Amino acid sequence: MSGSSFGTIFTVTTFGESHGPAIGCIIDGCPPNVMLTHSDIQFDLDRRRPGQSSVTTPRKESDTVEILSGVFEGRTTGAPIGLLIRNADQRSKDYSKIKDVFRPGHADMTFQEKYGIRDYRGGGRSSGRETACRVAAGAVAKKVLLQYGVSFIAHTVQVGSIKAETFDSNEIENNSVRCADPVASIKMIQLIESLAKEGDSIGGSVELLIQGLPAGLGDPVFDKFDATLSHALMSIGTLKGIEFGEGFGAVEMKGSDHNDVFISKGDDIETLTNFAGGILGGITNGQDVICRVAVKPPSSISKDQKTVTKDGDETEISVKGRHDPCICPRVVPVVESMAAIAVLDRLLMQKTITKRQ
Amino acid sequence: MSGSSFGTIFTVTTFGESHGPAIGCIIDGCPPNVMLTHSDIQFDLDRRRPGQSSVTTPRKESDTVEILSGVFEGRTTGAPIGLLIRNADQRSKDYSKIKDVFRPGHADMTFQEKYGIRDYRGGGRSSGRETACRVAAGAVAKKVLLQYGVSFIAHTVQVGSIKAETFDSNEIENNSVRCADPVASIKMIQLIESLAKEGDSIGGSVELLIQGLPAGLGDPVFDKFDATLSHALMSIGTLKGIEFGEGFGAVEMKGSDHNDVFISKGDDIETLTNFAGGILGGITNGQDVICRVAVKPPSSISKDQKTVTKDGDETEISVKGRHDPCICPRVVPVVESMAAIAVLDRLLMQKTITKRQ
Amino acid sequence: MSGSSFGTIFTVTTFGESHGPAIGCIIDGCPPNVMLTHSDIQFDLDRRRPGQSSVTTPRKESDTVEILSGVFEGRTTGAPIGLLIRNADQRSKDYSKIKDVFRPGHADMTFQEKYGIRDYRGGGRSSGRETACRVAAGAVAKKVLLQYGVSFIAHTVQVGSIKAETFDSNEIENNSVRCADPVASIKMIQLIESLAKEGDSIGGSVELLIQGLPAGLGDPVFDKFDATLSHALMSIGTLKGIEFGEGFGAVEMKGSDHNDVFISKGDDIETLTNFAGGILGGITNGQDVICRVAVKPPSSISKDQKTVTKDGDETEISVKGRHDPCICPRVVPVVESMAAIAVLDRLLMQKTITKRQ
Amino acid sequence: MSGSSFGTIFTVTTFGESHGPAIGCIIDGCPPNVMLTHSDIQFDLDRRRPGQSSVTTPRKESDTVEILSGVFEGRTTGAPIGLLIRNADQRSKDYSKIKDVFRPGHADMTFQEKYGIRDYRGGGRSSGRETACRVAAGAVAKKVLLQYGVSFIAHTVQVGSIKAETFDSNEIENNSVRCADPVASIKMIQLIESLAKEGDSIGGSVELLIQGLPAGLGDPVFDKFDATLSHALMSIGTLKGIEFGEGFGAVEMKGSDHNDVFISKGDDIETLTNFAGGILGGITNGQDVICRVAVKPPSSISKDQKTVTKDGDETEISVKGRHDPCICPRVVPVVESMAAIAVLDRLLMQKTITKRQ
Repeated sequence: MSGSSFGTIFTVTTFGESHGPAIGCIIDGCPPNVMLTHSDIQFDLDRRRPGQSSVTTPRKESDTVEILSGVFEGRTTGAPIGLLIRNADQRSKDYSKIKDVFRPGHADMTFQEKYGIRDYRGGGRSSGRETACRVAAGAVAKKVLLQYGVSFIAHTVQVGSIKAETFDSNEIENNSVRCADPVASIKMIQLIESLAKEGDSIGGSVELLIQGLPAGLGDPVFDKFDATLSHALMSIGTLKGIEFGEGFGAVEMKGSDHNDVFISKGDDIETLTNFAGGILGGITNGQDVICRVAVKPPSSISKDQKTVTKDGDETEISVKGRHDPCICPRVVPVVESMAAIAVLDRLLMQKTITKRQ
Repeated sequence: MSGSSFGTIFTVTTFGESHGPAIGCIIDGCPPNVMLTHSDIQFDLDRRRPGQSSVTTPRKESDTVEILSGVFEGRTTGAPIGLLIRNADQRSKDYSKIKDVFRPGHADMTFQEKYGIRDYRGGGRSSGRETACRVAAGAVAKKVLLQYGVSFIAHTVQVGSIKAETFDSNEIENNSVRCADPVASIKMIQLIESLAKEGDSIGGSVELLIQGLPAGLGDPVFDKFDATLSHALMSIGTLKGIEFGEGFGAVEMKGSDHNDVFISKGDDIETLTNFAGGILGGITNGQDVICRVAVKPPSSISKDQKTVTKDGDETEISVKGRHDPCICPRVVPVVESMAAIAVLDRLLMQKTITKRQ
Repeated sequence: MSGSSFGTIFTVTTFGESHGPAIGCIIDGCPPNVMLTHSDIQFDLDRRRPGQSSVTTPRKESDTVEILSGVFEGRTTGAPIGLLIRNADQRSKDYSKIKDVFRPGHADMTFQEKYGIRDYRGGGRSSGRETACRVAAGAVAKKVLLQYGVSFIAHTVQVGSIKAETFDSNEIENNSVRCADPVASIKMIQLIESLAKEGDSIGGSVELLIQGLPAGLGDPVFDKFDATLSHALMSIGTLKGIEFGEGFGAVEMKGSDHNDVFISKGDDIETLTNFAGGILGGITNGQDVICRVAVKPPSSISKDQKTVTKDGDETEISVKGRHDPCICPRVVPVVESMAAIAVLDRLLMQKTITKRQ
Repeated sequence: MSGSSFGTIFTVTTFGESHGPAIGCIIDGCPPNVMLTHSDIQFDLDRRRPGQSSVTTPRKESDTVEILSGVFEGRTTGAPIGLLIRNADQRSKDYSKIKDVFRPGHADMTFQEKYGIRDYRGGGRSSGRETACRVAAGAVAKKVLLQYGVSFIAHTVQVGSIKAETFDSNEIENNSVRCADPVASIKMIQLIESLAKEGDSIGGSVELLIQGLPAGLGDPVFDKFDATLSHALMSIGTLKGIEFGEGFGAVEMKGSDHNDVFISKGDDIETLTNFAGGILGGITNGQDVICRVAVKPPSSISKDQKTVTKDGDETEISVKGRHDPCICPRVVPVVESMAAIAVLDRLLMQKTITKRQ
């Protein structure tokens, strides 16, 4: 497969550029007989779409999804699910002047080098707009996983140097930065707004919690649960790092501290601590899977920056357009979605291993 | 594919358990007409093998590789390359008592949950021993990449809280911890030896530098260069995190600081800084690719630990055997190898995109 | 991948049911910088679409394709190409009565057994309508292959017991049965029309000729050129057999007769005969690739047939609707398209093997 | 994947040349907890191995398989199964004179064109010897399928113009040509022996019967059961055609004759006839799957043949060595094995579709 598909059993293939007529995806391998409605998908698309608040881009996109196939009388049929989202507010004029200039931090230069041609309108295929398809497909995966009791919570844990210090999952959707700490969220929003005024942007960190996972998911030695999840999440353009459980904190730990002690709890075997983040030897152990990702500051800033043209001539650029000063709140549903796609794929794969019933 | 294969064009499939008769791999899709000798492969295997120094396990394995196919008169033929390494020093008796006990931090419990059966001898398939096959295959990938001018340097940058502060690539193979800072390496070794005496272990961090990469490698949107490399590296059992360029440091950075400014240098376009780690939009930009991984403290420690048996009964365990108190020095060649496999795969994929010549 | 994708490098993924809102596909891995227009694709779609003549179904579908992505200013960009075809003439009422009855020769029963649910409207996903997407994708593959000098000619060589006895490629599009023998074509059409009046249908055979292929395509041992082409073509619902070169005729041949003698022709090595059909050891030898497929008589006939309901009760059925009495003429462009997809995929794969240039 | 692997869930990857040190394979995705012994695999290898009778090559190979991994205490563990077969009777001297000559009907020329290099000893990778690995892997697949009640019978139905006219499965292993008709088998053997004396060879046809298959296997639209089986079988070097059920006979049939009528039988729905060969819409319908393959006359004949050298100079060649005058009897176990690999792969895939239990 050539880069636009993810998954072995539950497979998602996407298409579409930021300023073309439409974006969309095909979900193949979705189990049949799962109840699925338009609003199941639209709900998460609305969480990702632009124009939600003061800390996101004002670009106007309703991101209305159309289900083209694979669902009959309210249930999935096992046939591929085609999803389509028309691009509405394209404003191609905003971008014509960057036709021959490589914006710093963007993929303009690398797409040109790779393909020898690029659709420069709004970043074309390299735009974060393609993540809407991931969210649509992820919503389907989440709906399937619900019947297995698996759920996903992503939330912003850091913006610049401001860190969340409390965790109340009910707070996440109550603030525009999607932080589970209502006090920190206020400071985060203030920081983002002040940087937006300066024409600058800021990085952050998002944590993901996967609950209700059965033990046994993940396929050694190359498709371990953490390897697959890393592939899924690190394919989100804006991420620069990922860690599981204690992650980089484990660098300074001793084995006697890092090893999670096993205990019996009723008929189950659990661990007393969860430094491993719910994964042992690349296989889920039945505990919550916890990981954190590093989110880079958006490259589109209106501050003047030095750069070069396609031909190598020096120039300056100020990326006007409509941009996100911090992408964390909109990355939250994308992280959940990519995780859901990867988890469902591994869960279905595990059905091929479990003995005949 | 079911977990034992990596790659789309240059594909590596491995087999073998820690205490079975042999381990090995099949490399498919290796370009023909590349000169390849036994010693090209043995060199890196010797860097990874146990028993090298005071900071590694004393298990004795010569790890002698046999080339079974795909090479004719000193050149690759394009046919699959079969590689075989016999297990020598198996000492199965060391492990019989852990048959029914789940070692903390190990994959005993999760393999049992996943498969309903496990080869408990030395961790079976979950043993780090399988990485010898990755190193053998990686050595082949490195040899092919040499003709493209691509090279790999991995080195230990941190053990516990001791960090390397200087970088001299010539020093790496001069000390048993594979650190490019000769002063830090001494402290690292002392720390490891003292923890080994206590029957404990320690974590660390390894940095990887890929030099000579052409711009244009990596396949949006799901098989981006960083996503593929994350998959490859995070499939190494002992890693708990990965970051590219500034990585988690980007969390606290502003866009105006993090964006690497483009400059002209002769006929090439380069970047003034390399906060991105050589990757823009998931595609290499021609700069060095830099990433760091978090290496957990080895789970096998001889200190007494509480745990449970397969049936959930409480017990204590002290993992005697022969173990690595810090796995960083032996992870170094594994990191290079998995990177080489992933890079060659993307480089060959790029040949399908480049226009007809 | 779960059945809706074909190809390793040039990959086609399709979706859509006969009577849903739309069908479509995503083409991934198409080389960039290839000139591609709407009419390049529409041309072959028009050759496949229903309602062309007296020997095809009168269902009215304009099959107008919309290019949603991957093409910019008239050229492919290397990004995935999304193609959409809206379903126009759905007439769902025709099919409501077959909701609970299994039509003989159709996939109603097997889809129900496989998925536990089925979209019964017009056969849903099992309808030949999905082949429109194959034709659209195949047209793109053909356009790319044109620059390599590779072309495809499929034509009807037999209908019932009437065989084509002459070959003039210019005649193929001059008759409604797509036969290269203008005399035989008249008899074929007469036979089809008379069977259509009886409410019956008839089988046939289609030959495929691939010209201009370079030597060296096909990937031993499992993805041999003939194996891959067999996979591609036998996935067309209506085919029941395939043979290459002499095919089943080789059963009665001696080695001394079947072996094609090599000769020199200028700088090239050719074969004097082509009993092998252009393939040796699963790799093209530079001669034309020739194969023939067996096309079954369409299962939809208006004659009364005995069958059972979903619950196993005996009943009779007469499939009214609008059907093809012989599918050969409409299979011709589908055969060419699937061949083009498979050939381009192997040609791009070969670029990963050819030495550095 | 680059041609040496087959399957999505149950995956087989092979390596090895005719005259290298060894051949072998890795089976990945084999379900755990299946009882598997050395003799399960050796049994079918012995059916395929050379030197069995007057109608097969006298090359001496014991084809003793060694299980290197994936089996513990007599049961599969879910880990990859490594299998190794050492080459014993290599006689490289037989082949040195064909170093620069392209044997008619062989892959010498196409391997040279594809890779720019070839291991010419005994055909190298293009030798039928690689099918031993398929048989070893197929034996494992058969063992797993046994617990699902699925079994495979292949047998020679035609040699030259001599056809089997009766079918008694007990007779197949009673004659050296593996024909289920004991009378026809005698004539077949006479024909083969007389052609062998002339230094010539003869084609034939093998039929495959798969019994006990559940309904529901095969994955529309590209991985249909017949498409997948065609890929699997047509990858066997010596095959030139495949047909299912009535196959090419369907060309002359009417729909009213070819449609298999559904009937109720107890709780099951069956078909009165089986013209479709057990497959409807690419999915098994619970009836026996029946297909036939065309087997070409072996290319290695000792008669003098005209040909050219690598450089295009005319020459003559007589392929001495030790060859099969008719390959049908040895193809029988290979056909069964490739079918078993493909069937198990689809059966495991179906587990991902079947609803939660």
